Amino acid sequence: MSKAEEAKKLAGRAAVENHVKNNQVLGIGSGSTIVHAVQRIAERVRQENLNLVCIPTSFQARQLILQYGLTLSDLDRHPEIDLAIDGADEVDADLNLIKGGGGCLTQEKIVAGNANRFIVIADFRKDSKNLGDQWHKGIPIEVIPMAYVPVSRTVTQKFGGVIELRMAVNKAGPVVTDNGNFILDWKFDRVHKWSDVNIAIKMIPGVVDTGLFINMAERVYFGMQDGSVNMREKPF
Amino acid sequence: MSKAEEAKKLAGRAAVENHVKNNQVLGIGSGSTIVHAVQRIAERVRQENLNLVCIPTSFQARQLILQYGLTLSDLDRHPEIDLAIDGADEVDADLNLIKGGGGCLTQEKIVAGNANRFIVIADFRKDSKNLGDQWHKGIPIEVIPMAYVPVSRTVTQKFGGVIELRMAVNKAGPVVTDNGNFILDWKFDRVHKWSDVNIAIKMIPGVVDTGLFINMAERVYFGMQDGSVNMREKPF
Repeated sequence: MSKAEEAKKLAGRAAVENHVKNNQVLGIGSGSTIVHAVQRIAERVRQENLNLVCIPTSFQARQLILQYGLTLSDLDRHPEIDLAIDGADEVDADLNLIKGGGGCLTQEKIVAGNANRFIVIADFRKDSKNLGDQWHKGIPIEVIPMAYVPVSRTVTQKFGGVIELRMAVNKAGPVVTDNGNFILDWKFDRVHKWSDVNIAIKMIPGVVDTGLFINMAERVYFGMQDGSVNMREKPF
Repeated sequence: MSKAEEAKKLAGRAAVENHVKNNQVLGIGSGSTIVHAVQRIAERVRQENLNLVCIPTSFQARQLILQYGLTLSDLDRHPEIDLAIDGADEVDADLNLIKGGGGCLTQEKIVAGNANRFIVIADFRKDSKNLGDQWHKGIPIEVIPMAYVPVSRTVTQKFGGVIELRMAVNKAGPVVTDNGNFILDWKFDRVHKWSDVNIAIKMIPGVVDTGLFINMAERVYFGMQDGSVNMREKPF
């Protein structure tokens, strides 16, 4: 296992150890780090006979829940989530996140937004002082397909940087999200006041959501290269 | 023709008379009032040999554009619209609108939001002092299907009123928008500060857009029962 993979595992297991309890409704994030958390959740369910219900943030998360024999539900049946655990592409000093490298930002934000506690797990490479220090692929913006050109223009005219329609790799044309939309990757060129920018972009007609998760994460576990886990917490 | 239908025609024709000019990119709204505007646009194109390009806000608008032999385009090719003309379900004294009775609120807001001028046409029944005075079906909110229950809870917990998932009439299950989403109809129970409420609702994860059009319309033409047209304008 590579250093990064080992670090993901450390972070995932630490979050599950510290926060998962019996009788919880859990939000299950997407991405490679989440796999380790789900493995540990499944171990604990078996060992401790925990009664848990899991709400997925993506097709991948749904498949993981089923593969590990966990109880699958949805926000129709369980609109209040006790604890959501998810990865991030980047985490800044204030616990603002960039998410959506995997294209599931909207579902991830829906689940995190309906969770009483939102805990992030990541490896050491995702730890930044300012957004953009480590992550260079920009902020994903999910858009209604008919609006991708005017939204691109509006974002770059207002906030600079460059914006690209995310193209599929094994299909001719753009990535289509699980919601049937397109993704713009906005490569910003400076540090912004992210809470303001997030509101301004989401308010543009045609924007479904952004990959900026502002003031949502309560705690982040970073798996480190030396085998330790660093925790960063929101001051309350 | 009923009084209301006659009033729609008056409003539609007045807007086209006063605002449509040669070489414009036009946004074409949805609904029954728009039909009259498109008829008048087509007459003027023939009579005056106007060179116009039309961007639809819905399947219905697209069909109207084609049916009347107008030039169809989209926001990819024409992201800047000179003039958008659309109907409304209700118009208040400040030119705030409720739209989306026909379920195309998101596309209508995308087109209006990218228009240099946005002109509304309506019959006398849509004219209100406060939103809710005339229109009792509430404010439509387009949502990602997985989020419809938590969004409903969040809106009513924050702002009161009652909320309903819009059900289809000739299909088992909910209305699905042209974007593949659901529509919640929020029946509010008091006058709110609509600009704040619009931002708060749109920022809820899972909300695609709302039927509140705040500070977007520049001018409204109301066709009246006596055959006249009343114009209301935004003060600049």
